[in-house]
Amino acid sequence: MSLIVQKYGGSSAADAEKIKNIARRAIATKKKGNKVVVVISAMGDTTDELIDLAHQITSQPDEREMDFLLSTGEIISSTLLAMAVKSFGHKAISLSGGQAGIQTDGIYSQARIRSIAPQRILKELDRGNIVTVAGFQGVTEDNDITTLGRGGSDTTAVALAVSLKADMCHIYTDVEGVFTADPRLVPEALKLKEVDYEEMMELATYGAKVMHPRAVEIGQIYNMPILVASSFNDSPGTVIHGGFPMEVRNKVRGIAHDLNVAKVTILTVPDRPGIASAIFEPLAEAKVSVDTIVQNASIDGKTTDLTFTVARNDLRKAMKVVDSVAKSIGAKGCANNAKLGKVSIVGTGMQNTPGYAARMFRALYDAGINIELITTSEIRITCIVDEAKVPEAVRALHKAFELDKE
Amino acid sequence: MSLIVQKYGGSSAADAEKIKNIARRAIATKKKGNKVVVVISAMGDTTDELIDLAHQITSQPDEREMDFLLSTGEIISSTLLAMAVKSFGHKAISLSGGQAGIQTDGIYSQARIRSIAPQRILKELDRGNIVTVAGFQGVTEDNDITTLGRGGSDTTAVALAVSLKADMCHIYTDVEGVFTADPRLVPEALKLKEVDYEEMMELATYGAKVMHPRAVEIGQIYNMPILVASSFNDSPGTVIHGGFPMEVRNKVRGIAHDLNVAKVTILTVPDRPGIASAIFEPLAEAKVSVDTIVQNASIDGKTTDLTFTVARNDLRKAMKVVDSVAKSIGAKGCANNAKLGKVSIVGTGMQNTPGYAARMFRALYDAGINIELITTSEIRITCIVDEAKVPEAVRALHKAFELDKE
Repeated sequence: MSLIVQKYGGSSAADAEKIKNIARRAIATKKKGNKVVVVISAMGDTTDELIDLAHQITSQPDEREMDFLLSTGEIISSTLLAMAVKSFGHKAISLSGGQAGIQTDGIYSQARIRSIAPQRILKELDRGNIVTVAGFQGVTEDNDITTLGRGGSDTTAVALAVSLKADMCHIYTDVEGVFTADPRLVPEALKLKEVDYEEMMELATYGAKVMHPRAVEIGQIYNMPILVASSFNDSPGTVIHGGFPMEVRNKVRGIAHDLNVAKVTILTVPDRPGIASAIFEPLAEAKVSVDTIVQNASIDGKTTDLTFTVARNDLRKAMKVVDSVAKSIGAKGCANNAKLGKVSIVGTGMQNTPGYAARMFRALYDAGINIELITTSEIRITCIVDEAKVPEAVRALHKAFELDKE
Repeated sequence: MSLIVQKYGGSSAADAEKIKNIARRAIATKKKGNKVVVVISAMGDTTDELIDLAHQITSQPDEREMDFLLSTGEIISSTLLAMAVKSFGHKAISLSGGQAGIQTDGIYSQARIRSIAPQRILKELDRGNIVTVAGFQGVTEDNDITTLGRGGSDTTAVALAVSLKADMCHIYTDVEGVFTADPRLVPEALKLKEVDYEEMMELATYGAKVMHPRAVEIGQIYNMPILVASSFNDSPGTVIHGGFPMEVRNKVRGIAHDLNVAKVTILTVPDRPGIASAIFEPLAEAKVSVDTIVQNASIDGKTTDLTFTVARNDLRKAMKVVDSVAKSIGAKGCANNAKLGKVSIVGTGMQNTPGYAARMFRALYDAGINIELITTSEIRITCIVDEAKVPEAVRALHKAFELDKE
């Protein structure tokens, strides 16, 4: 008998009918001879409604209370799901994150899972229950409720799968799997049957929006196979795993993109030790997550221009910090551009293989697209371009790397 | 330094502004040098909305899941209240029933409190926090969430007050206290400055709707003084306690009424041993709570008529049981009347003092009101009358017992 952990996101649980549909799918999985744990997110807009309620009370809600408040959204959906399973004549029980044994640190709104005590879930599975678990949450040592922040339900599902020694983790969402590019931009994009953990992380980080990289990382560390598929049909989806034969690795697997990019440039910065930390430490304190950083070569040996990117909704916060830092370090001024996007080619096959960058730059050049910044990892090359050019860039790269051919 | 437990009901917490108002009141109580614990009910319609959601899933929601679902309503209001207190610059923390140490039995939807471990609340009070507690809920030994059923938040407040050795429990609601009769029926009704626990229980049981008798009973057992007052103004309210001087006890304290009464009569029941249990055991199994029972004297020594009352919304369930029982015991048939009400005179002064019943019956007779059934306790006499006559009956009794005179 296999043990499967399934996860359904908020759009898959938007109303009572959709929750009943999840119940039917969980029951079908059980009938195939599996033990089933279902991690569920809050229904559609519940989280936004709760945030709105808190903001009716105060513009700066206490973080502990906010986590406790938001945790109710997933309790509601998981109890409704257990009711639905039972109404179809099967045994079920819902558990909060704490009841499911998920212990976290005390960093409210972005807690990290410290450990999982799986005894309660295992006991309920042995009793024949489909176990529904409220995603996105855990408890501290002191029994206070925390939420796991972005990607929290994906993380809950994969971490539970690992802790329960599940055979597989299913992430059900509103897309059918991982594609070679966003099908809305590239109609000929193909669904990948399988993808490597690292490729998936890069695809997810760079905007594939299928599942959160944090959850993929846990899958990779513990080698937990993850199926990503649609909750609305039975299309086979994409399996994320680590056991690829050599030849499959040897190519670009997909094109990722992200429109949520803003660029900040600090002009004529004195080129001396300590300048970078003088800029980036205050940004970190302001909780601005900095992405790409580029420092131009100093021409006169005395000053340089420093450029970095941030998520677009962090731009205002970043500029506030940077304007004051620029003055204190004697820079000439600051500039920014909020209308940028990223395109990336991703594939483990790119490791130690030259030529991919050159092909990418050539394809963008041939399409008449100017590159603002370049950043790379071992299995990814990213170009930052004008936001308006992103769709064209994705199509050009998809074609250049022949991703429309199986 | 005194310790006060306050409770605010759903109508006092109907929206963000009202929750902020509760925060202000709790802070004002703290500023007077008290430690403050606030038990709060779910906001206005939240509970009904959650029940509606469950019924969108299934017409018969699982009881365990239903309790877990409903418990989120009080978590939402108690976290919002803690946020509000903090936004006004005071320390606060919200706790679920479980975190507050409230352990119950496992009877879902009407759990009883078994014990309270007050350590966490005491620790948070020592840290200078106003502690907000989600009412109406607790946890079982297995850490599953239960709800306490009707009057649950009142019960939470009084039980916490006892467990914390509080100096007083404040029940804030949408009425200003306990009156000699419902002021909507009797404009000259007076607010009682104080009332005895037993009188309050009878007044509450018989429809005074100020606070739940279950909570009053706990107050009585542990001699916890309870203030009942309005959450919308600073009017002094009514204190419920047990330390009355003799002379105050010596009279009728108030007139209670209840419109939610239905009568069932089983006609020509064989008058033999075991008949009563043959009727009332199946009613108990169907969870129909039977109130007054009257068995007419048997004229021929062989058959009798048996009459009892139930809450009106239990009538259909009761008739289903009774129709089938009547056949099996050879009764002639059943009749019912759903349009009845109760009026009661209540006062510990009635104990061992004759004449009250006679005065009551005379007052109703003078007002032209027919009495259908009579039932009494040591400190209460109740007449069941036509629903339409209840307001008139209340007014007549209020006048007859001179309750409009201080």
